[in-house]
Amino acid sequence: MYYGSRIIVALDPPDGVNVIDWCLNIVRETRDLVAGYKIGLPLVVRLNSMEDLSILSKAMDGDRLKIVDLKLADIGNIMVSAVKPFIHHGFNYFIAHSFIGCRDGLDVLNSFLRENNAWLITVVSMSHRGSVEAMDDVVEKLLEISVNTGAWGVVAPATRPEIIRFVRKHIGSRAKILSPGIGPQGARPGDALMAGADYEIIGRMITRSSDPRHVVEEINKIHESPLREG
Amino acid sequence: MYYGSRIIVALDPPDGVNVIDWCLNIVRETRDLVAGYKIGLPLVVRLNSMEDLSILSKAMDGDRLKIVDLKLADIGNIMVSAVKPFIHHGFNYFIAHSFIGCRDGLDVLNSFLRENNAWLITVVSMSHRGSVEAMDDVVEKLLEISVNTGAWGVVAPATRPEIIRFVRKHIGSRAKILSPGIGPQGARPGDALMAGADYEIIGRMITRSSDPRHVVEEINKIHESPLREG
Repeated sequence: MYYGSRIIVALDPPDGVNVIDWCLNIVRETRDLVAGYKIGLPLVVRLNSMEDLSILSKAMDGDRLKIVDLKLADIGNIMVSAVKPFIHHGFNYFIAHSFIGCRDGLDVLNSFLRENNAWLITVVSMSHRGSVEAMDDVVEKLLEISVNTGAWGVVAPATRPEIIRFVRKHIGSRAKILSPGIGPQGARPGDALMAGADYEIIGRMITRSSDPRHVVEEINKIHESPLREG
Repeated sequence: MYYGSRIIVALDPPDGVNVIDWCLNIVRETRDLVAGYKIGLPLVVRLNSMEDLSILSKAMDGDRLKIVDLKLADIGNIMVSAVKPFIHHGFNYFIAHSFIGCRDGLDVLNSFLRENNAWLITVVSMSHRGSVEAMDDVVEKLLEISVNTGAWGVVAPATRPEIIRFVRKHIGSRAKILSPGIGPQGARPGDALMAGADYEIIGRMITRSSDPRHVVEEINKIHESPLREG
């Protein structure tokens, strides 16, 4: 068992596969070497049954981060209704947008999650070019909303390390930083950790490889050096 | 057949019901009297199978607006993957957040929708109190993103008619305005149309009534007067 990995594997199945079988293969090959897994809406809408989520959640080790990334961005009671089945099936971290605000929004979701031993992660910046059009102007406000809500973690993109540095400086140790955008989107493994992130969310680079376990081992090695420096 | 209704029924099933049977009952009672229907994430995660969406979509008349409200807020290719099964099952309008921006975000989604005879609706303001924390400061930017993307419609809350008036003034006739927030959330039927909206999205006031058809008929009557004035 490898402790201290900073890798969260994004389970984004390709077209034309049985999504649960595909995920189970990746999970069984990598679960002793990673910090956790993230599933998203494209996977959820391809499930034969929500019950399959229990199989997937049980295959992940008990203490892994089991993250559901629906990029929730609705009023509080709608978000609560949306997360209930996932909590029921064993998932325990949920990503929502801080853009929607705290009152009657994230505060309602976060209270519900805490009552159910689950945790909130908020998005404060994204990896695509559109993120600069409206979100990046208000990053500070988005961070404030996240901190006020009591989010466990925030999402900021590995593709723009200056945002990660800004976020770390602003929130200190009050929340974890999770960074997507490694691999095909442009950042290299280790870039986000070097800038101050706690976890790197990595999908295709691992899941589309012919040897996911080997790639995970290599990335864990790369991650060790910025961690030692930190 | 009643033409010209401005009602979109939000199908938000209560706990403890079979969601498809519940929706079909409401749809069959009201479909000749309304403009369309909206389903959301809380319904989707309670489906036994995505195939059930075909039954629901077929029960709605062919020319109704069949809106999927996932409040999409992700990078473009993720949103495209998320909407595919819904398009396959006959839904044709999709709600996404404009705050994620156009480039590699909404533009990718909108192109995909247009190629599939489906349409984009963007959120520019919300009905809950958290909407003022980050979104309302940048409404003008969010509208600009929506217009640049070529969205068919925008969502603005009936609870704050001044926002609807601002939106209408800003976008003219370039996009439809759809307004939630009527009933338990505080606005009355007709409030949003009076302020300049094209459609009112109404859920519990209709769906939790003992006689949904009668409520729809009454709201259609209320709507006729602001429409005549307009």
